[in-house]
Amino acid sequence: MNTMVLAVKIVLDKWRSSIKNFDDLLLELSDETLLREIVPSKNRGIYLLGHLLAVHDDMLVLLDMGNKLYPQWNDAFLKHADKVISDIPGCTELRQAWIIQAKAIQQKFDALPSEQWFEKHRAISDQDFALEPHRNKLNVVLTRINHLQYHIGQLALLK
Amino acid sequence: MNTMVLAVKIVLDKWRSSIKNFDDLLLELSDETLLREIVPSKNRGIYLLGHLLAVHDDMLVLLDMGNKLYPQWNDAFLKHADKVISDIPGCTELRQAWIIQAKAIQQKFDALPSEQWFEKHRAISDQDFALEPHRNKLNVVLTRINHLQYHIGQLALLK
Repeated sequence: MNTMVLAVKIVLDKWRSSIKNFDDLLLELSDETLLREIVPSKNRGIYLLGHLLAVHDDMLVLLDMGNKLYPQWNDAFLKHADKVISDIPGCTELRQAWIIQAKAIQQKFDALPSEQWFEKHRAISDQDFALEPHRNKLNVVLTRINHLQYHIGQLALLK
Repeated sequence: MNTMVLAVKIVLDKWRSSIKNFDDLLLELSDETLLREIVPSKNRGIYLLGHLLAVHDDMLVLLDMGNKLYPQWNDAFLKHADKVISDIPGCTELRQAWIIQAKAIQQKFDALPSEQWFEKHRAISDQDFALEPHRNKLNVVLTRINHLQYHIGQLALLK
């Protein structure tokens, strides 16, 4: 295996394991628990779930892998902080959406040849990418893994 | 820049930015705040700081980059959970240690040629590495970034 293939593998392995950690955590938390604030006056578990769904939806677009699956939740979970929008989907709906989205993302990740992970993402111009070739698709996934881990740490406090 | 160099760059950039995030957060938190539990009966901020110091010390050894800087804190912050060992260093000492360690790690990271990040780490045998070449040094750093992000998410709740 050459270094390019190895580099892609270690990043995508981390994506998969982080998603698995989140899945396991979700199974441990009841709907009632998800509706609690992690720390008084901070985000509720349900908001983090919706927020990650919205951020990962955005990632699909950024990676040129299609459209958002849940554009209708952008407003509640991305544009606004928790408890600003009162009309949000329920835990059951969000849990199902999470499973569907994770599966869809995994299929798209698995289908992209290694070399294409080093191509530019959608939010950078050809000119800028020529100067900053590290702003590639693999970098986007790394950033999202970091973001996911950050919130997994928080959600784990609800246990 | 070839894909190997790019892959190393994007991972090390994430290490640097995660450490920076933690530095910024530490500056925002007073010693008094660090001594608080993030959530009742869970870890205190000071424990997370000591724990990250111990884990990053271990990483240095795993990457064949020298000895631990603070082996004396292993017991309190790695082998045991928070509040099990009562004799722990103070916030000032830990804050200083964090700065010294982060600088030392950064120097060692910057000094390692890109291709050597794809060599095996110290806890895997030659035989196993021949079968699983993704268990390389770069992978170790990725895992530690994930761990750091997980705890940054928690520490941020003390703000």
